[in-house]
Amino acid sequence: MSTSTSTQIHLASRPTGWPTDSNFSTVAVELPDLAEGEIRVANEFISVDPYMRGRMNDTKSYAAPYALDEVMTGGAVGRVVESRAEGFNVGDPVLHQLGWRDLSQSAAGNFRVVKDLPGLPLSAYLGILGMTAFTAYVGLTEIAGLKDGDTVFISGAAGAVGSAAGQIARLKGAKRVIGSAGSAAKVDLLTEKYGYDAAFNYKDGPVRGQLHDAAPEGIDVYFDNVGGEHLEAALDAFNPGGRGALCGAISVYNSTEAPVGPRNMSNMVTRGLTLKGFTVGNYAEHYPAFMADMSEWIAQGKIVFDETVVEGLENAVQGFLDLMRGANTGKMVIKL
Amino acid sequence: MSTSTSTQIHLASRPTGWPTDSNFSTVAVELPDLAEGEIRVANEFISVDPYMRGRMNDTKSYAAPYALDEVMTGGAVGRVVESRAEGFNVGDPVLHQLGWRDLSQSAAGNFRVVKDLPGLPLSAYLGILGMTAFTAYVGLTEIAGLKDGDTVFISGAAGAVGSAAGQIARLKGAKRVIGSAGSAAKVDLLTEKYGYDAAFNYKDGPVRGQLHDAAPEGIDVYFDNVGGEHLEAALDAFNPGGRGALCGAISVYNSTEAPVGPRNMSNMVTRGLTLKGFTVGNYAEHYPAFMADMSEWIAQGKIVFDETVVEGLENAVQGFLDLMRGANTGKMVIKL
Repeated sequence: MSTSTSTQIHLASRPTGWPTDSNFSTVAVELPDLAEGEIRVANEFISVDPYMRGRMNDTKSYAAPYALDEVMTGGAVGRVVESRAEGFNVGDPVLHQLGWRDLSQSAAGNFRVVKDLPGLPLSAYLGILGMTAFTAYVGLTEIAGLKDGDTVFISGAAGAVGSAAGQIARLKGAKRVIGSAGSAAKVDLLTEKYGYDAAFNYKDGPVRGQLHDAAPEGIDVYFDNVGGEHLEAALDAFNPGGRGALCGAISVYNSTEAPVGPRNMSNMVTRGLTLKGFTVGNYAEHYPAFMADMSEWIAQGKIVFDETVVEGLENAVQGFLDLMRGANTGKMVIKL
Repeated sequence: MSTSTSTQIHLASRPTGWPTDSNFSTVAVELPDLAEGEIRVANEFISVDPYMRGRMNDTKSYAAPYALDEVMTGGAVGRVVESRAEGFNVGDPVLHQLGWRDLSQSAAGNFRVVKDLPGLPLSAYLGILGMTAFTAYVGLTEIAGLKDGDTVFISGAAGAVGSAAGQIARLKGAKRVIGSAGSAAKVDLLTEKYGYDAAFNYKDGPVRGQLHDAAPEGIDVYFDNVGGEHLEAALDAFNPGGRGALCGAISVYNSTEAPVGPRNMSNMVTRGLTLKGFTVGNYAEHYPAFMADMSEWIAQGKIVFDETVVEGLENAVQGFLDLMRGANTGKMVIKL
């Protein structure tokens, strides 16, 4: 028998503005014996992602909000420690959405067996082979309709989604890829490691001017992780027919005041622009294509990635808050 | 020989904010004799449209800006008064884009012969059978992807585009159609004549609240002629998967200050919304489908329309300014 006490992080109250420790509680739950068809998993990595901030609010959205006094959920990878389900053996690595706890137990259908990957940690299934890189892939291909020869601008470019997006854009035919990030070190990474043609630190000056300098001939595609000033600058830089994939708006997630909206929306009419918001869960049918492309790119050494690893479930909330402040490079995961 | 003096309205200077008479000049031009392949047309109606305000600016756009000290152009219908082109006979009604003058003369390829319509003035080719209704059609079908059962919100609903859009939406399967306009008389027209299920006067109170009352279950499609507060309210009212066709932003065309942008753009991500700006000139391939549908609807008495007719080329500028202030119901045309 494995341990049966699951330590879980619950949402205790809905944050106003920046979340604090008081919005969360740590709860020890005694798990019942496995029912037929269930498995118990010891998690090795749990994912913290900016979208989780939105789910802490109680607002109209594709994704239901987190329930109060229930465990936060999210991507996680671990290994089976006990099984009453066919096809799941003790030791198998599995990917699932029952994160923010050390032990996850549920019907086997909520878990997917994955392969141990030579040279890659299991956490890759949360990042470069998981939701964040898949988000980058879908956003560029399905949402923004990336075409050969496009000039692409990506904000939040050193994050998990952005660092994948820059490389995918190039591999999918972009002519020029421009990124923004929030520190000089990240900007260096963009051009030196992730293959961006040009990059700037948005803290160095207005985005509009820096983007214009980096893309004097305009942009065709914008992949937005940031919102706010970045989106307005992109709307100014778009060439006719430009397309924006709106993936996130981390600049406003924790704002308690209504943000300033883009003042140049009328460009959308005169230039025939499209903006399309998305959450990747609605595009699961493209996952096989993503995995085929990404597995090949990784095998060919065409994709690089970084992870920011925070140790210990007890540091998950702090890790999440640090993520929201941009402390990560690439994917942030909590290692248990 | 016909008269050979063409009275034309030129753009004399680019307006800042609201145009004034001083931005325009009236010029008499002596036309040369027709060259082989040319025709001369006496215009009967010229079109004034809100999009023309944008072309008075010198900004990046699909449509080239109007040139200074050149004639304003735009839709017009008239009759051939002299012809040196095969297929064009004196008296033939023609549609063309060489408006803002009483006599238009050019290569025959710039004109299209149309039919005299029983019971309809030639001006119908500028409105319900022309660019404005075609804009409504393309916006709903190609841009917003209208589907059976959608709830549709249309701003500027008593204008040439909006009054057509409400009826087309219903004929194409919308479950519920809601419109906004700027006077009580227009609001009455929307529900009593144009078939809107609900309508409100945006001057009576915040759009957000009035829209919520009219569409308590949310909207699926928004057809935007107005921009500004209307767009923000629509972004709040959208159901997941909502789609907006951005056709115009008359609320901001004459603003000298940057308008307030929508402060709720992050709804686009969480609800998977799409906003797509368009100018109908890029969708000409759909014109035959529009003409087939619209001709049938008119023959069956399923479409009604209004025109606001201003007499005299000398009143064209004033008519245009009145249009921008919402003095029109349905299509505004200048009758020569």
